[in-house]
Amino acid sequence: MIVAMQDTATEEQIQHVIEHLVRMGFSVHRTTGERQTVLAAVGARIDFDIRNLEVLNGVQQVHRISEPYKLAGRGFRPDGTVIEFSNGLKIGADEVVVMAGPCSVESREQLFTVAELISKAGARVLRGGAFKPRSSPYSFQGMGEQGLKLLREAGDRFNMLVISEVMEISQIPLMLPYVDILQVGARNMQNFNLLRELGKVKKPVLLKRGIAATLEELLLSAEYIMAGGNYDVILCERGIRTFETYTRNTLDISAIPIIKKLSHLPMTSDPSHGTGRRDKVAPMARASVAAGADALLIEVHHDPDKALSDGAQSLFPEQFRTLMDELRMIAPAVHRKIA
Amino acid sequence: MIVAMQDTATEEQIQHVIEHLVRMGFSVHRTTGERQTVLAAVGARIDFDIRNLEVLNGVQQVHRISEPYKLAGRGFRPDGTVIEFSNGLKIGADEVVVMAGPCSVESREQLFTVAELISKAGARVLRGGAFKPRSSPYSFQGMGEQGLKLLREAGDRFNMLVISEVMEISQIPLMLPYVDILQVGARNMQNFNLLRELGKVKKPVLLKRGIAATLEELLLSAEYIMAGGNYDVILCERGIRTFETYTRNTLDISAIPIIKKLSHLPMTSDPSHGTGRRDKVAPMARASVAAGADALLIEVHHDPDKALSDGAQSLFPEQFRTLMDELRMIAPAVHRKIA
Amino acid sequence: MIVAMQDTATEEQIQHVIEHLVRMGFSVHRTTGERQTVLAAVGARIDFDIRNLEVLNGVQQVHRISEPYKLAGRGFRPDGTVIEFSNGLKIGADEVVVMAGPCSVESREQLFTVAELISKAGARVLRGGAFKPRSSPYSFQGMGEQGLKLLREAGDRFNMLVISEVMEISQIPLMLPYVDILQVGARNMQNFNLLRELGKVKKPVLLKRGIAATLEELLLSAEYIMAGGNYDVILCERGIRTFETYTRNTLDISAIPIIKKLSHLPMTSDPSHGTGRRDKVAPMARASVAAGADALLIEVHHDPDKALSDGAQSLFPEQFRTLMDELRMIAPAVHRKIA
Amino acid sequence: MIVAMQDTATEEQIQHVIEHLVRMGFSVHRTTGERQTVLAAVGARIDFDIRNLEVLNGVQQVHRISEPYKLAGRGFRPDGTVIEFSNGLKIGADEVVVMAGPCSVESREQLFTVAELISKAGARVLRGGAFKPRSSPYSFQGMGEQGLKLLREAGDRFNMLVISEVMEISQIPLMLPYVDILQVGARNMQNFNLLRELGKVKKPVLLKRGIAATLEELLLSAEYIMAGGNYDVILCERGIRTFETYTRNTLDISAIPIIKKLSHLPMTSDPSHGTGRRDKVAPMARASVAAGADALLIEVHHDPDKALSDGAQSLFPEQFRTLMDELRMIAPAVHRKIA
Repeated sequence: MIVAMQDTATEEQIQHVIEHLVRMGFSVHRTTGERQTVLAAVGARIDFDIRNLEVLNGVQQVHRISEPYKLAGRGFRPDGTVIEFSNGLKIGADEVVVMAGPCSVESREQLFTVAELISKAGARVLRGGAFKPRSSPYSFQGMGEQGLKLLREAGDRFNMLVISEVMEISQIPLMLPYVDILQVGARNMQNFNLLRELGKVKKPVLLKRGIAATLEELLLSAEYIMAGGNYDVILCERGIRTFETYTRNTLDISAIPIIKKLSHLPMTSDPSHGTGRRDKVAPMARASVAAGADALLIEVHHDPDKALSDGAQSLFPEQFRTLMDELRMIAPAVHRKIA
Repeated sequence: MIVAMQDTATEEQIQHVIEHLVRMGFSVHRTTGERQTVLAAVGARIDFDIRNLEVLNGVQQVHRISEPYKLAGRGFRPDGTVIEFSNGLKIGADEVVVMAGPCSVESREQLFTVAELISKAGARVLRGGAFKPRSSPYSFQGMGEQGLKLLREAGDRFNMLVISEVMEISQIPLMLPYVDILQVGARNMQNFNLLRELGKVKKPVLLKRGIAATLEELLLSAEYIMAGGNYDVILCERGIRTFETYTRNTLDISAIPIIKKLSHLPMTSDPSHGTGRRDKVAPMARASVAAGADALLIEVHHDPDKALSDGAQSLFPEQFRTLMDELRMIAPAVHRKIA
Repeated sequence: MIVAMQDTATEEQIQHVIEHLVRMGFSVHRTTGERQTVLAAVGARIDFDIRNLEVLNGVQQVHRISEPYKLAGRGFRPDGTVIEFSNGLKIGADEVVVMAGPCSVESREQLFTVAELISKAGARVLRGGAFKPRSSPYSFQGMGEQGLKLLREAGDRFNMLVISEVMEISQIPLMLPYVDILQVGARNMQNFNLLRELGKVKKPVLLKRGIAATLEELLLSAEYIMAGGNYDVILCERGIRTFETYTRNTLDISAIPIIKKLSHLPMTSDPSHGTGRRDKVAPMARASVAAGADALLIEVHHDPDKALSDGAQSLFPEQFRTLMDELRMIAPAVHRKIA
Repeated sequence: MIVAMQDTATEEQIQHVIEHLVRMGFSVHRTTGERQTVLAAVGARIDFDIRNLEVLNGVQQVHRISEPYKLAGRGFRPDGTVIEFSNGLKIGADEVVVMAGPCSVESREQLFTVAELISKAGARVLRGGAFKPRSSPYSFQGMGEQGLKLLREAGDRFNMLVISEVMEISQIPLMLPYVDILQVGARNMQNFNLLRELGKVKKPVLLKRGIAATLEELLLSAEYIMAGGNYDVILCERGIRTFETYTRNTLDISAIPIIKKLSHLPMTSDPSHGTGRRDKVAPMARASVAAGADALLIEVHHDPDKALSDGAQSLFPEQFRTLMDELRMIAPAVHRKIA
């Protein structure tokens, strides 16, 4: 950590900062320059709050030198993490993996219809929500465990893995028998109690970026899970909130190459939630693959106009098939392939 | 709801939109103008997702006419909500209520020291965190129920009400015996399961705005609690995320007069979290009162340099006393008073 | 325009609003519903400021129904605008046009070296700044007219068109003899005096989105140029300001498909300014083509470490050649080709 | 400047960075730690682009230690700048100065009516726009020099100074005979050619923050003017663009105390443009004074419904008088007074 003192800082102020650092367990190296004094503090606890220094008298700036995350950083596994599943599917390897399915599991008929068509088009993982707390207490709230059972059954039938969202600690044991990947939604990205429990689980976790979260904060949340022993974390961009209101959120495509540089974890993209509009899903899915995404999450419904949730952002089956064909043409440009 | 069709929309597209609306339960009035057709749809379910219309062919724009909240809107109680507590304190009335205390309850000695000094300075509600899930698993995680007991004891001793944050549904029954107001943090503003449970509680809830939440979304979350029968909701601005990085967040002071116009609920401000820096708390607390806030939340610590959490944003006792004197001078300008 | 009155609006307030509308030249249709009164106002001047209604007593919401732009809207030319140059190059047609070159023209040797290599790699338009007002008065300020002459000479030698940025009205006559496209930078997107003059020019204008501009505002600025008679406007996404600070700006890739839907004008992308970092230019250039961009602006320098401006975002020659190969693989996926 | 190398940086990469720094004129001090190497570079040119280092191989982070501005920094004049005018009025001293007037000068009658009433209510500076380039070419474009003459006449008659906005270099000589303060609008905050010319002028300049500008960028623009020799710069917050759309912009009140700490320049607030809605002007004006603003800019019109521009954000005369009374009550809380 580097603490730059103001030009006008008094010797007393400098000593006060040094004592504060020593009390917090740092070793301090002092450089007195022509214009200002700079302190280098070594040995920081990873969770040290640098604002405690910023508000001290005479301090101009404080910079953390080491990244606040270790396990999630690229240096931890320079070759990148590849997550391999029991059926041989790998995330983070050559293949760009497409995860698709309806927003919510609504019925056996709906799920099996969608699952069959996406499987034939090349999807490798079946997505679907079983728990859907909604902004209105009168809306469809999800099928719960019954939805999970259907997901498992449909995944097995059409040879796909299964991913579904976990919203509370109490749902973890309920979900484990049915899903291959546990998804953490954007609103829970900093639900640290939930992250801690997922660190103890033996299944991969897909962690979505919060709509107001910096990429550093996303990596800190991944670190939280990994610190518990679960290194199989998959990251996901799903749109951030900006001043532009035409789309629900602004899908930050640049997050894909940035995360691939900063971290070894697989990085994915969710153009369905990232745009909130069906007609923007295909362009943003193509852009995601072109930018280097390891996987995609795409909402598909066989009859979107009648979907019980998020129909506006669900692709029609034919749109999904066309998109898969386009993605197959793009993938080789980034030395990847698609099933 | 108003649906404006594109100039180029075909009659077939217009009919398709009308059928869609009728199927969703609306009555539709059609106006065919020189340039475009406009549909007025009456009878909307409050949770209707207007994106379902926006993505239909030929649709140019869709506008919701009625506000998506009813109970939280000004029209529901034009004179404004006043919440009265058993000790006679009122929030939303003439007095600007100051809630203060440490970020976390750390020990009996710490809490009683802080409680005594803020009470003497004019605080009417004691705040303090008992559950502190932190970004690092190695940091202080709060005292739990023991912290709640200390809060109650200190509140009673120094004649203050008690407010503390609830983070999970499971904490509600634990907290009810000890606190007078349940606080919902910014990260939980859209934790709808939690909000639903708080709608069944018989104690006031202070709901903080998420850092990426619009004011409409804040009111929708309040509506969620109120729909369950608990009308005693207090709203709180605590900073939004913007491109400016000098402060942790940008405290949106304009949210205060806006909410006071849109809603009847009391509106408060948290300049401690809203700025994240001790030296900015007093100016922003003064600005909040000048803008019409009904109450303030302010972090105070008798020894901020040694605080176990958020010391950088905690006021020194002397700073708090000075601030209270300044607020007493400002309040009459907005026809209010401070204890 | 639709004016929704509050549930509690009095008849007097409603009449006041109607009179106001009539005075402004609107015809007003009134619908009195069970809960609220809605006014439809027809005949709005395109520049009417709807806030004048929003602040009237009793008004709940005001919505503009017709888009505030006409010439720039898709409906004006449903088949899309194709700009054809005297050498046969078309922007907005099948070919994705790559415009490349150094940030600033620094010397004849520099410019000709870069121009030759990008031309061989497939660039069709040569870019380079001649006027460079910089944030420091001590930095390189550009070569001025001498730079323009060099651009023309290099463009002609290597069979490329020439684009350069115009910053002030006084530069227009100076630039016209040398350039094929006049570029308006992000900071000038709402310099209406400049836009008005460019409306009188007989050459295409490339208009960049401001870093805080909505897409509607971008189209309004295009409308301003078109209203003067110059319909050859090319739009360009170059990054918006968000809370994420890892890159200089956030390149909003979704702007590409959105503009293609809302407008008939060609839409381009500038991944160099949009990311500000060389290592992110290639992924974002690929993503732009995959999302449907009609052209790209890319900074290339033969020795970026010694560039006099923006070296950090300039590609090395070898990087540019590799990128062009990748783009050639991606273009067919969106039914396009690259030279 | 501090350059932190990655843990995995090779000795060759480190040497390359050192050579780069030396070539740019820096002296380099190297610290080789257990985990990583840190380079301290001394002697930086103030306009060095740190991204040139960030993109070098092996570099983890680069931090500027010294502020990129000198003249605008608090250290340059620790006691604060007070600007004194020939009539004895001071900006930056004990009095909070209120500048008021119509958005545009529309006619002699309009201006004199407004000027008389605001002068009686306590305004000390008369504001009014003479040049109004508008988003529509058909809107009122301002009275030009005739407007400036009227401003001077009205200012002299009612004993107020005069401020008006300069939009282009060519307007400077035209304006100097008539105005006491030259205002630079938000859209021109980074019009460096204009700023350079204003650095040569002998009259104070009021510089507004751009809607997407950080406070550091605002201070860099002030530095640009000061570097030319004109130290009488007044800064102004007028709202930033955020995701919240209820108001036109979000007035960042926290900018006031932050600028007062970072800089010695007077800091003012424009709640009229900062909110865009008449009913929010008074609360935000009060908040600005409570937060420590040195002056306010407020739009007032004797008949806002008929104003030719920005009527929606102009106060009625009676509202302005009431506001002035409220501000007089608040000022003493921050040890200030109001005329």
